[in-house]
Amino acid sequence: MATHSLEAIISEITPPDAQCMAQAQAHTAQLVMPTRALGRLHEIGERLCAIQGTLTPSITQKAVLIMAADHGVAASGVSAYPQEVTGAMVQTFLAGGAGINAIANQVGATVRVVDMGIIPELDPAHMPNGAALRVSKIGRGTANFCKGPAMERPAAEASVLAGYRYAAEMINEGIRIIGTGDMGIGNTTPSTAIGSVLTGKSPAVMVGPGTGIDKNRMVAKRDIVEQAIRVNQPRADDGLDVLAKVGGFEIGGIAGIILAAAHHRCPVVIDGFISSAGALVAQALCPPALEYAFAGHCSEEPGHRHMLDHLNLRPILDLGMRLGEGTGAALAMSVIEAASRITKEVMTFDEAGVAGKS
Amino acid sequence: MATHSLEAIISEITPPDAQCMAQAQAHTAQLVMPTRALGRLHEIGERLCAIQGTLTPSITQKAVLIMAADHGVAASGVSAYPQEVTGAMVQTFLAGGAGINAIANQVGATVRVVDMGIIPELDPAHMPNGAALRVSKIGRGTANFCKGPAMERPAAEASVLAGYRYAAEMINEGIRIIGTGDMGIGNTTPSTAIGSVLTGKSPAVMVGPGTGIDKNRMVAKRDIVEQAIRVNQPRADDGLDVLAKVGGFEIGGIAGIILAAAHHRCPVVIDGFISSAGALVAQALCPPALEYAFAGHCSEEPGHRHMLDHLNLRPILDLGMRLGEGTGAALAMSVIEAASRITKEVMTFDEAGVAGKS
Repeated sequence: MATHSLEAIISEITPPDAQCMAQAQAHTAQLVMPTRALGRLHEIGERLCAIQGTLTPSITQKAVLIMAADHGVAASGVSAYPQEVTGAMVQTFLAGGAGINAIANQVGATVRVVDMGIIPELDPAHMPNGAALRVSKIGRGTANFCKGPAMERPAAEASVLAGYRYAAEMINEGIRIIGTGDMGIGNTTPSTAIGSVLTGKSPAVMVGPGTGIDKNRMVAKRDIVEQAIRVNQPRADDGLDVLAKVGGFEIGGIAGIILAAAHHRCPVVIDGFISSAGALVAQALCPPALEYAFAGHCSEEPGHRHMLDHLNLRPILDLGMRLGEGTGAALAMSVIEAASRITKEVMTFDEAGVAGKS
Repeated sequence: MATHSLEAIISEITPPDAQCMAQAQAHTAQLVMPTRALGRLHEIGERLCAIQGTLTPSITQKAVLIMAADHGVAASGVSAYPQEVTGAMVQTFLAGGAGINAIANQVGATVRVVDMGIIPELDPAHMPNGAALRVSKIGRGTANFCKGPAMERPAAEASVLAGYRYAAEMINEGIRIIGTGDMGIGNTTPSTAIGSVLTGKSPAVMVGPGTGIDKNRMVAKRDIVEQAIRVNQPRADDGLDVLAKVGGFEIGGIAGIILAAAHHRCPVVIDGFISSAGALVAQALCPPALEYAFAGHCSEEPGHRHMLDHLNLRPILDLGMRLGEGTGAALAMSVIEAASRITKEVMTFDEAGVAGKS
């Protein structure tokens, strides 16, 4: 897979199977219940059929792929937490003690973490559960995009290709649904910038408290995003340009996961605000890729709704979550798997011998 | 348990453990994530602690208890389906082919069905999977409440006590969370009547399409509910009076499940419109019982939101479902179990060695 160029990948992505979707919808109409009485579960199940190209979709093998990186803009005081937390949380993921581990346990998902460019050096060979860590540093944190681009364009492309490669690796291992996850102190700030550029909403509308900054710091964060856009002039019609100028390595990685899922006809569940910034980059690069994506949840971060609208995705859950790590994506997998079971396990009126409408 | 009178049960129900709730909230504040970053999952987990009286709540053993009964008002043409579907669906539940079976499989919940008063005679001894059926006919369908009460007051009390008994049986077998389910052609009509009387909203506001009737039949259904309330004059301050005059056997059974859960300090998940009518009856009988209840989802049936408001419950899911059978309750159990894991499995900042806010 590493030999694919980004252009080749994008050119090979086609929409899900429309004929399979129509067959799945016809099957739903026969199920022993009032017409489409399970609402969105039917839509989800039918999309799974179209994505996997089968009337018996299976997502039993699940994974969450967490992309981690540091951000130069953290030096501008945009987060409530110190930058060292990024690396410490990567270790907590491997130790099994973070929120995503508990939720992944619940839904039966494997957790894998990619160091896309955190500042500390973590050596998988000398860590507990190091087999769940991949190291693919595009840099040691991005540059502070207040003064110039976060990264050069080749680094942006490399981050997308790295995300693609690690997701393809998991799909080739047998994973049938992937959730996107993120870790990176400061990363709601580049996500706000990407969201503003690609949705067209102003930074004032897109900005939020992230990990929990107060109103004064939110005003400063908005100013930083406005400055970053003014200084760098990202071009909304060029996903790699936006990613390079105001993005982050893990955000590029998430865009790559989505492209890999679409390229392999595998469903992908997008987590919250940061993952949706990655999805906006993927959409800018390859609009049909988003037809393989589900929005796991709507984040408490206020700008997330605008991102989801622009992605044309309806969130499955809305539980006031704002953690990231892939938690919302993982939790939604249980609903998505229930939808796959409705498609496969429920009898038709004929099979059950139940009378239809009178 | 059968020796308990309804009065004795109600008098023995007390609220969940407030001290345990406070301890659980203090623990949440230490978890290695931004403050309460998992939103409603924390609230759910803390309520589980208070309900079970422990900081390590467990809901691994799950069940859905489906209450089935027929309704005299079905003769007035309120449903899109013929009355024989009630008994046929009970058999489909036992055969494992209904929507609830697929979702219960997904969340690992046992399904049990109680014949609270369906018209056909089903003999568990001569049925496949008959062990999952309990027969406790309060009658063979209710009377048509357009002309007089659906049942006599002693039958209403018997239906609540039967629901109590079967839920207590499951809890005594080791079940740690129960979802309520319903089956009964025509039962959105008594639920609409109960909802109108106990929330104070007019039948015009509460009425909906149920299994899928058109607008003309919805107007007729509203007229029937208005007539039932006019003819029977149910008293909103007397839950048994409302249940007897405009209710149903399975709705009384659902109220009994909720009382049993509260009495045994066991969480109970309320499904949709019909289950919430049962919850309104339980609330009228014993307001603190509802502190043991979670609302699994918000139904597509438009009156459901008014019921949930009156019950002071926020739904966990909102997926446009309107099937009943306990499907929304069962699906929400995955989210509730994830909440229990967050409480138990996530490290604190100290345990993880991660720095707090800068």
